[in-house]
Amino acid sequence: MELDISPLAPAQFAELNDIDGVDIFTTSIAGGYKGRDNLLLAKFCEGTSVAGVFTTSKCASAPIDWCKAYIDNGVARGLMVNAGNANAFVGKVGAQTVEQTAQAAAAFIGCTPQEIFVSSTGVIGEPLDPQPMMDALAQLDDAKRGGYEAAANAIRTTDTYAKGAGATLDLDGVEINISGIAKGSGMIAPNMATMLAYVFTDAPIAADVLDALLKPANRASFNAITVDSDTSTSDCCLVFATGKADIDPITKLDDPRCALFAEALRAVLHDLALQIVCDGEGAQKLIIVKVEGATSDQSADVIARSIANSPLVKTAVAGEDANWGRVVMAVGKAGEPADRDKLQIRFGDLLLTDQGQRSPHYREEDAAAYMKNDQIEIGVDLGLGDGAATIYTCDLTHGYITINGDYRS
Amino acid sequence: MELDISPLAPAQFAELNDIDGVDIFTTSIAGGYKGRDNLLLAKFCEGTSVAGVFTTSKCASAPIDWCKAYIDNGVARGLMVNAGNANAFVGKVGAQTVEQTAQAAAAFIGCTPQEIFVSSTGVIGEPLDPQPMMDALAQLDDAKRGGYEAAANAIRTTDTYAKGAGATLDLDGVEINISGIAKGSGMIAPNMATMLAYVFTDAPIAADVLDALLKPANRASFNAITVDSDTSTSDCCLVFATGKADIDPITKLDDPRCALFAEALRAVLHDLALQIVCDGEGAQKLIIVKVEGATSDQSADVIARSIANSPLVKTAVAGEDANWGRVVMAVGKAGEPADRDKLQIRFGDLLLTDQGQRSPHYREEDAAAYMKNDQIEIGVDLGLGDGAATIYTCDLTHGYITINGDYRS
Repeated sequence: MELDISPLAPAQFAELNDIDGVDIFTTSIAGGYKGRDNLLLAKFCEGTSVAGVFTTSKCASAPIDWCKAYIDNGVARGLMVNAGNANAFVGKVGAQTVEQTAQAAAAFIGCTPQEIFVSSTGVIGEPLDPQPMMDALAQLDDAKRGGYEAAANAIRTTDTYAKGAGATLDLDGVEINISGIAKGSGMIAPNMATMLAYVFTDAPIAADVLDALLKPANRASFNAITVDSDTSTSDCCLVFATGKADIDPITKLDDPRCALFAEALRAVLHDLALQIVCDGEGAQKLIIVKVEGATSDQSADVIARSIANSPLVKTAVAGEDANWGRVVMAVGKAGEPADRDKLQIRFGDLLLTDQGQRSPHYREEDAAAYMKNDQIEIGVDLGLGDGAATIYTCDLTHGYITINGDYRS
Repeated sequence: MELDISPLAPAQFAELNDIDGVDIFTTSIAGGYKGRDNLLLAKFCEGTSVAGVFTTSKCASAPIDWCKAYIDNGVARGLMVNAGNANAFVGKVGAQTVEQTAQAAAAFIGCTPQEIFVSSTGVIGEPLDPQPMMDALAQLDDAKRGGYEAAANAIRTTDTYAKGAGATLDLDGVEINISGIAKGSGMIAPNMATMLAYVFTDAPIAADVLDALLKPANRASFNAITVDSDTSTSDCCLVFATGKADIDPITKLDDPRCALFAEALRAVLHDLALQIVCDGEGAQKLIIVKVEGATSDQSADVIARSIANSPLVKTAVAGEDANWGRVVMAVGKAGEPADRDKLQIRFGDLLLTDQGQRSPHYREEDAAAYMKNDQIEIGVDLGLGDGAATIYTCDLTHGYITINGDYRS
């Protein structure tokens, strides 16, 4: 099944700057995935620091186990990603496959296997044969070099487009570059982790500082999206800092340059996260759920997710139906403090309900016109406190059923 | 849109015994709902006791507020249900509508409004005009009398068939009858309450005893089903006991007759609950998720719901795809104790995985053949403890999207 490109796709792949200290190679194993390259190897210069966040799944894949074991070293020389097989739930052979392929990558780069970070995405439960990957790694040469778009394409599975986002910032008069790629389309509800996302920067940042900056940026981006409430066994976001930019190293969190870098990092992660939602399986519309007036940010987050994961809300948006009654339902089922008679619901700028009933200003034709947009903002004000949260999702369409029910993926 | 009858529908409506002390009337207000009667009034004899469980939604409907206010009195003379409008989220006018229509029903029956239990089901947020209901109640006469099938039809909305279940048991040599009806098709994840269900018995049971028997029966039936993880604003299950059976009243929980009655009640609620799942919007297959070996029953329940509510699991079943990798994913995302390498997954009697990987006995053709069944049992053994839970759901098909996305319901 060849999928149509999402109507919410960006017009083109982002223009990303090369990152000094990063060399990208892509190739194909076992004929590739849908005819595309399906193996990415990124080689990093010595001195590259790394930080990461990972799925909280209790059934995490073997590559996740591997990355978690070595992330605290903070040192990376390579990133290896294959698409088409998640190397998840295959027993002890999964860990062996990671180790053997990491060894092959380390031999190519000239480092230890523990400096290779590994991800796999695709089918769960199918053993991943290491030999074709090792063969492909042994045959890597300069002809296989590529840029970030090639890298983003090599990690796609059901994604209908390659995802990239970048930023530049000025630190100490030097241009610092951040370039990131991501993949993800279904099984997206990272919640406390992310889908596959890799961000590269030439900034010289110590691993512990990078880690401290990554976590809040991740919360506001990948942790704020959901396609189908299903959390993958393989979610992972890694940030690599080569340190090639010629400025004094950033080694402490109270370094004033951290705030600048964190802002740029947040922007890149946020852009990538939205690109994942916009490529949600079957997505026709982007839905932004903004909850405010809750008793706490945590409470607002639970309510926003209850709305964003509600099949009835998502199908209503797909049908361009301003069915705010289903939003009321989703607020009610969340189990968080809510007072029916203080609830305000907006679709875009249109106030639909006020004080627990339909607003006197509500006009069905206005709401119907608004629902034709590609991007629908559902605003809920609980009127109880200052808690706020924003969650991004997409609509639930026949496309989702077709992709996940009519064919094996 | 006229919906096809669910392929999982029972061959015919259950044969239900009349309950002495219950008189049923059905009629239509505002032309009915899809041409059917849409108003039910059940009249109870003096001395009828009542117990109930209600939605835990924080945005409950006005009728739920009304029932909760009077349920502790334990006394009922009438039940009034309208289909097509939920009388939910309409501000103060909602409570006024309940009060006015309860007064009209009380006038017909000859009791106080507080002895009338009220439910409404249908669109949320649309004010429910009391006048047509009051007019219909004023015009009730013997020509409007009907049986339980008529009652079950009068409370349907998107349900494709009327739902009934009954039981008889012997207490003290006397035949005791239990007859129940229910409705529900979408917005079904009652969790701590139920959809609309009404059970009638001629047993003489004190209200507090009835309440104590209802709660566990409800947990194992209505609280164990989910269609779409969306919890309604109007869920409610009420049990009315007329006491017309000529046996000594049951007034204490340690009465040995309680166990017999409880077993019969459980069977009726369970039957009704399964009929709701089998009429889940778009349902083509019934899915039974059995989790065992968890660290506690509560933990097993969370994991079973995680599987039963997973869109990826439900679409896989719809596609007759034995995609057990998605079951692994749903176990992993539940956040409960699980050891990937101890996990066993069965579809029916087929062992698919063992010790964290595909079973050596697994044959794709066996699994493919099993998935053609109307009823799919997904078994998960966590291998950690004695905790167990069973949750019932249905598959997620194009029909669900069509019903909820393509047309306003």
